[in-house]
Amino acid sequence: MISTPTSLEQTCVNVIRGLAMDAVQKAKSGHPGMPMGAAAMAFALWTRHLRHAPNQPSWIDRDRFVLSAGHGSMLLYSLLYLTGYGMTLEDLEEFRQWDSKTPGHPENGLTPGVEMATGPLGQGLSTAVGMALAEAWLSAKYNRPGHSVVDHRTFVIASDGDLMEGVTQEASSLAGHWGLGKLIVLYDDNQITIDGSTSLAFSEDVEARYRALGWGVWRCDGMSIEAVDKCLQLALDDVDKPSLIMCRTTIGFGSPNKAGKSSSHGSPLGAEEVLIAKAALGMPDTEFWVDSEALKEYRKAVDLGKELTDGWEARVLAYEQEFPELAKEFKQAVTGELGTQWHQGLQSFQEAGATRDQSHAIIGNLANTIPNLLSGCADLAESVKTLIPGEQAFSRSAPTGRNIAYGIREHAMAAIVNGMTLHGGLKPFGGTFLVFSDYCKPSLRLAALMHCPSIFLFSHDSIGLGEDGPTHQPVEHLFSLRAVPNFNVMRPADGNELASCWKIALESKTSPSAIVLSRQKLPILTPSLPTKHPAEKGAYVLREASGNQPKVVLIATGSEVSLAVAASEKLEAEGTPTRVVSMPSCFLFDRQPDSYRRSVLPAEILSVSIEAGSTCGWHKYADVCIGLDRFGASAPAETLFDKFGFTVDNVVDVVCRALSSN
Amino acid sequence: MISTPTSLEQTCVNVIRGLAMDAVQKAKSGHPGMPMGAAAMAFALWTRHLRHAPNQPSWIDRDRFVLSAGHGSMLLYSLLYLTGYGMTLEDLEEFRQWDSKTPGHPENGLTPGVEMATGPLGQGLSTAVGMALAEAWLSAKYNRPGHSVVDHRTFVIASDGDLMEGVTQEASSLAGHWGLGKLIVLYDDNQITIDGSTSLAFSEDVEARYRALGWGVWRCDGMSIEAVDKCLQLALDDVDKPSLIMCRTTIGFGSPNKAGKSSSHGSPLGAEEVLIAKAALGMPDTEFWVDSEALKEYRKAVDLGKELTDGWEARVLAYEQEFPELAKEFKQAVTGELGTQWHQGLQSFQEAGATRDQSHAIIGNLANTIPNLLSGCADLAESVKTLIPGEQAFSRSAPTGRNIAYGIREHAMAAIVNGMTLHGGLKPFGGTFLVFSDYCKPSLRLAALMHCPSIFLFSHDSIGLGEDGPTHQPVEHLFSLRAVPNFNVMRPADGNELASCWKIALESKTSPSAIVLSRQKLPILTPSLPTKHPAEKGAYVLREASGNQPKVVLIATGSEVSLAVAASEKLEAEGTPTRVVSMPSCFLFDRQPDSYRRSVLPAEILSVSIEAGSTCGWHKYADVCIGLDRFGASAPAETLFDKFGFTVDNVVDVVCRALSSN
Repeated sequence: MISTPTSLEQTCVNVIRGLAMDAVQKAKSGHPGMPMGAAAMAFALWTRHLRHAPNQPSWIDRDRFVLSAGHGSMLLYSLLYLTGYGMTLEDLEEFRQWDSKTPGHPENGLTPGVEMATGPLGQGLSTAVGMALAEAWLSAKYNRPGHSVVDHRTFVIASDGDLMEGVTQEASSLAGHWGLGKLIVLYDDNQITIDGSTSLAFSEDVEARYRALGWGVWRCDGMSIEAVDKCLQLALDDVDKPSLIMCRTTIGFGSPNKAGKSSSHGSPLGAEEVLIAKAALGMPDTEFWVDSEALKEYRKAVDLGKELTDGWEARVLAYEQEFPELAKEFKQAVTGELGTQWHQGLQSFQEAGATRDQSHAIIGNLANTIPNLLSGCADLAESVKTLIPGEQAFSRSAPTGRNIAYGIREHAMAAIVNGMTLHGGLKPFGGTFLVFSDYCKPSLRLAALMHCPSIFLFSHDSIGLGEDGPTHQPVEHLFSLRAVPNFNVMRPADGNELASCWKIALESKTSPSAIVLSRQKLPILTPSLPTKHPAEKGAYVLREASGNQPKVVLIATGSEVSLAVAASEKLEAEGTPTRVVSMPSCFLFDRQPDSYRRSVLPAEILSVSIEAGSTCGWHKYADVCIGLDRFGASAPAETLFDKFGFTVDNVVDVVCRALSSN
Repeated sequence: MISTPTSLEQTCVNVIRGLAMDAVQKAKSGHPGMPMGAAAMAFALWTRHLRHAPNQPSWIDRDRFVLSAGHGSMLLYSLLYLTGYGMTLEDLEEFRQWDSKTPGHPENGLTPGVEMATGPLGQGLSTAVGMALAEAWLSAKYNRPGHSVVDHRTFVIASDGDLMEGVTQEASSLAGHWGLGKLIVLYDDNQITIDGSTSLAFSEDVEARYRALGWGVWRCDGMSIEAVDKCLQLALDDVDKPSLIMCRTTIGFGSPNKAGKSSSHGSPLGAEEVLIAKAALGMPDTEFWVDSEALKEYRKAVDLGKELTDGWEARVLAYEQEFPELAKEFKQAVTGELGTQWHQGLQSFQEAGATRDQSHAIIGNLANTIPNLLSGCADLAESVKTLIPGEQAFSRSAPTGRNIAYGIREHAMAAIVNGMTLHGGLKPFGGTFLVFSDYCKPSLRLAALMHCPSIFLFSHDSIGLGEDGPTHQPVEHLFSLRAVPNFNVMRPADGNELASCWKIALESKTSPSAIVLSRQKLPILTPSLPTKHPAEKGAYVLREASGNQPKVVLIATGSEVSLAVAASEKLEAEGTPTRVVSMPSCFLFDRQPDSYRRSVLPAEILSVSIEAGSTCGWHKYADVCIGLDRFGASAPAETLFDKFGFTVDNVVDVVCRALSSN
């Protein structure tokens, strides 16, 4: 059944199968079937095509490898161990245990060589599209005739589930549209999902679908190293289109009783079946057995990797000599540094404006000081105001275009922004309406989990968008996102806070940011300190109460800060000393020292939050919450703010009642 | 340019264009281009094919019409007015105003004849798949030779954006797989999106893609009534496959200066251009002009509708006489009643178990007492435990199968569950892991907005799922969903609370429900009262403090209730009278009278919440929150609960510290 060009190669493939069976068995949980079925295709890719450097896992010009079928993590961990990424057999034995380098699903940051966290299906392939886009942009931007400093491929192993997920369709349609020829997806076409045969729910013609999306498609016997190798070569030669290689495989290959069945998908084979499978594969029954010749074969990757990085460094040296300015920009880009002049793009504002418009002005400036800033939007560029002026849309014919048109595909946009950010060399951001953050939530969460500092612009941030009505008016979204660990939601009160938010987002190394923007005009209320604004602390006293003796603290964000200020003026006039706190970011505020937080929000003083969204979450900061715990409505914005109690009179009324009942 | 079989028909089409232009102009916001471009195809559908009854908008056997391109709402409102759904010209003049029947995007419930809320792209088409599925199931289940009581079609008008969204791909793949031949989608192929030409981001071969998905595809001139009519007939004749009719149209048709341009998409044309357009179309410049002959033509729908419903009622009568038992079941199903015996399916539990397993037992019982209960899962049926025992998977060859295999398509699943629920006649539920509720959030939100009582089962509800790790462990999800208005999240503590949650979910008429289930075993702690459990109040005192004098109240949900009970025993033993409150549903608790809420959670007593998820949101109920404000990790569940402080010792420690600092 297995194509075995040499017995050493066969052993190499079986070693992966054995490690996967043993690790899952030892952990008493996991997915052995996928690595057993995909071992041959992975071997073909990793030993015959993948250009990587185990000693330099973060080498910028490495081929990217994404295991979109993240449940098959033991496949990846085996390869990383075998090819010399500093992982040990003990790490494999600790599969799925506390504090190990081998968690149930791959996590970048934990494990050298893991490019991204995968497991939630569809994310890997879609994020890989972003990596391939980054390569296309950087190579077009920086390579010069005879000087190739960026030239690598993005490989993916994807499962049936990946191909069923909608985000994959969105990202694949874009990859085809852009002609990302260096993206190659190996589809582990094993016809089995957790619930049984794929025929239960998946009878579409995948080949025809991908051709319709503008991809090159090949089919092969995925159990044959030679067959996969040949298709990989054909796919690599087809430089105009992304490639899908449909590899027909047998899940759980080697297990006489479970191969080809869903029972091998998500559970250990059982100790007895593991022994039977090893015998059937002609392997010794030693646990975590690695044939020394096979290991030697795999470890060639270390020296090969050294040759690759040496060659690249030499090319960069020659490039530097011929193009010193360009090389400087290139090196700055790939190190992720912003340079010394970038913050000159952070302007301050004197005049009222919609923060989406002010953001647009900032983007225009930043685009001049940050050459690798890339914009993008899910077909709302004119509404979210994302376009970099004077720059083209990224396309086949304009591969250094700095405006990415994602179409109406929010989910793929977020995954692709993550992919570009993880790739390095670019500072991309993507935009849509705040309500549609729902459509990309899985990718937003994954960015936070991956410590990936992606930037998202979410405009039309409340009922303030008016007539489009409740389908378009976010309510719960601010706290839905604030509740994501390591995700920084910033809702600036005016253009000056906004500039500070942009600064924080661009300087972030480990947390994704959402900058939440208004459709409507907001007055200027906060200091003109674009590079050192108090907003950097997450929350701060914007207006102190008369006599420094507040009887109430109004906490507000975004468009409601001006309401808080107006209410404070009325309250002060009526004899109630009122402090106004602007809180653009709970995330940043929560990271301040206790003493600072208490100084801004003293426990003993009545606090009232005002935000045109769900109050869920505000009780952490405020005694009384003014918000919107229902869906909005279709009407002019002023009507809505009035009807839903976002008025000076209502705020004053709420405060007075709370004070009198205290 | 326009195909004009008769001048009256032409006038009919132009009347829609005029109303759309005028209403958007008067509202100073909206989307005139779509209705102007799609008026001819809508006319062909509504006057020549759609079987509907304006006087009985909720007639169960009506054809469903879904405007997936919800931004073109004036197209739908015009048709509803013209065909006699009780809407007035004044309603149209109130377009996008407070409290009108004509909000910016269609909302069911507000406007008779609107089947569902649309606007967020992709939802309409995907939900329509659920409607078509419901029709296929009901007709297979109840029709008998010579007796057709269910026989209708589902029509959709969809835009470029709908076809780009991932959820549409998921749902379209399923529609093709299932062979939903009575689903017909008119694709308003106008080549324009908000950001400009679709060529910016959408170059895939839509026709080939849909053929690959198993659809019938036709192309026609969407400006020609006859051409659309012909394709509709061909599509209706093709009963084995869902149909996509690609109608090439001109957005903003009639406006000399804006037709074919994105400038007609999302803004009023301008008063002057409206006049120019009306002149170009040969219409008078009267605002909200409706030709009386055209109105008479459209209003024929009323009498035709009466004939249709009369005919159907006669068929039902004959059916009742021949199949009295079946007819009784049918009528009960279509009225949405559960019958008198259904709650016999609600069992109680004496033994510890995972709530997912107990839910499975309940489902098995309910399936016997509720004949139209339909299960479904996004390829985790064995994990979420959704399968109805002894029933087939729904398919072409088993159209009364009660288990729906959605594949790995969570988003489409949620939309389709919504569609079946909106359709009526069925009690469907869909399941996946709680963490993947992210993938279907847009549809969950829409269910709440539509007052659609869909039921979702979300299992693997915390770090309690263990080794699969942080990509699979929900953290923020409980409050992300709790924050959605009108969405009832229930996290039962044991099998008995679970039975109560099932009861609430099934009896709900206006709110969707999520029942959140554990992977791990939970002890039985609450009363065996499946039909009258205190959980129905959302929260209740499960264990009273000794002497009825609590010094602390522990509030917990789901798997943490047993931890709270254990901690309370230690606290009591140490001399701290401790009350334990189980709070399966914040949603239901918030709806109790103040007096009840205060009696459960007295303001003056220290309260501590315990939930293995984000604390965001708990501060509303508790003074101190024990939760998980970081991502989980991959390790055995017991290790994780221990490492993250979900232990008796930690709870006792937190309580003692809080009491001493009080």
